[in-house]
Amino acid sequence: MTLYMIGIGLNDEKDITVKGFEAIKRCDEVYLETYTSQLKCEYSALEKYYGKKIVLVDRDIVENKAEETILKNAKDKNVAFLVIGDILAATTHVDIFLRARKENINVEFIHNASVLSAVSIVGLELYKYGKTTSMPFPQKSYRPETAYSVIENNLKFGLHTLVLLDLDPENKKYMKISEAIEFLFDIEKRHGKGIITPTTKCIGCVRLGSPEKKIFVASTQELLKKEYENDVQCLIIPGTLHFIEEEMLEYWKKNS
Amino acid sequence: MTLYMIGIGLNDEKDITVKGFEAIKRCDEVYLETYTSQLKCEYSALEKYYGKKIVLVDRDIVENKAEETILKNAKDKNVAFLVIGDILAATTHVDIFLRARKENINVEFIHNASVLSAVSIVGLELYKYGKTTSMPFPQKSYRPETAYSVIENNLKFGLHTLVLLDLDPENKKYMKISEAIEFLFDIEKRHGKGIITPTTKCIGCVRLGSPEKKIFVASTQELLKKEYENDVQCLIIPGTLHFIEEEMLEYWKKNS
Repeated sequence: MTLYMIGIGLNDEKDITVKGFEAIKRCDEVYLETYTSQLKCEYSALEKYYGKKIVLVDRDIVENKAEETILKNAKDKNVAFLVIGDILAATTHVDIFLRARKENINVEFIHNASVLSAVSIVGLELYKYGKTTSMPFPQKSYRPETAYSVIENNLKFGLHTLVLLDLDPENKKYMKISEAIEFLFDIEKRHGKGIITPTTKCIGCVRLGSPEKKIFVASTQELLKKEYENDVQCLIIPGTLHFIEEEMLEYWKKNS
Repeated sequence: MTLYMIGIGLNDEKDITVKGFEAIKRCDEVYLETYTSQLKCEYSALEKYYGKKIVLVDRDIVENKAEETILKNAKDKNVAFLVIGDILAATTHVDIFLRARKENINVEFIHNASVLSAVSIVGLELYKYGKTTSMPFPQKSYRPETAYSVIENNLKFGLHTLVLLDLDPENKKYMKISEAIEFLFDIEKRHGKGIITPTTKCIGCVRLGSPEKKIFVASTQELLKKEYENDVQCLIIPGTLHFIEEEMLEYWKKNS
């Protein structure tokens, strides 16, 4: 039988592709991975629309117990493994694919939108982004400075940086744009390289891929003062801008 | 009325999202942009499945005549503007959005898969790609060396490079992986920096996002000798590899 790895997009139950929807209909078991991202709609809306019971699976099940659950079922049933956004964007999904193949399970991929292309809506050319980075929730003794050095390197080459902000969807915790800027200011204070100053222009995005998305274009100090809802967020530090990129940022400045 | 900018995915008529499909059903006019990419299926399959006549539009219409056609219609009708892959990934689509808004036309976005996330199937972590680059068809007197220098820069930081190969879908012309490697060898000969040697390991992909995709993992000299079908292709030069990335490349080496 087949393990269908299906991206379900970024917002709600109707962001699935027709191909994905038809595949789910053929499945006896449907799993949804709940720890790397979060939709705007409730899980019950998915169940209702797909007409299937959905088993929610956390990191422990996917990474440590898939052999006894998902993969065991996929040996003699059609099984759907749903991923918010596109499939395989996270290492944890590559890993489950490889483990399925080791067990000789047939795997089919059904792609969907990911934040990495949905960010195109901001209007910065996708080819002009450098390495993507993320900003993890601060740990007690561990304060990673990766985002800062990635931004620094990208800026050297005039490239934009997408900073994905940490999220803990199972506990409904989302890092806010203002927190991310505070962390960057902190790192800047220690390094003093002038990479992130109060007047650095940046773009804060909430819930990309959704009709309810918010795109704020402003200086870091202005974005720091805003109130943000409790939802998936990211921050973009633009590099060198082409005139059509400038025009699009002006548009969002007036229409955020 | 509304201009729906709808990504239709990478392979065939069923890669559209349910949301996109429902939006098309509400539209009086449906346009498909034909110059930035190409599906695996015929346009007639889209018309049949969507149940709508589709007007194919080339670069000249979108960039120079949209005001008299697409945008004029969108003032008093619901109009769909279909884009292969995701919307807004190309500057030409950002431009038509801005022009629509200048005419006060309401615009809705419906995202879909793009090659930039579908490439995750190769198994290299998306966050570890540096700047994306492209390899244009060679012009008489113009031989751009951008791809070479982007690869060089990315490798300095251990980052992967996605090289999108040029295509001219209206004339069914697709640059082949072997041609791209030849161009890179040519540039290497002039610069002699040892960036692209005959033993450089790389990944050649044909028709990503499709069940008929091909993923070849080999040295440049091996990829140079292969025969490729006439279809959308790209080339990846990997940077530093994590063990799960290595494992995935080994998988494709055995299962291409």
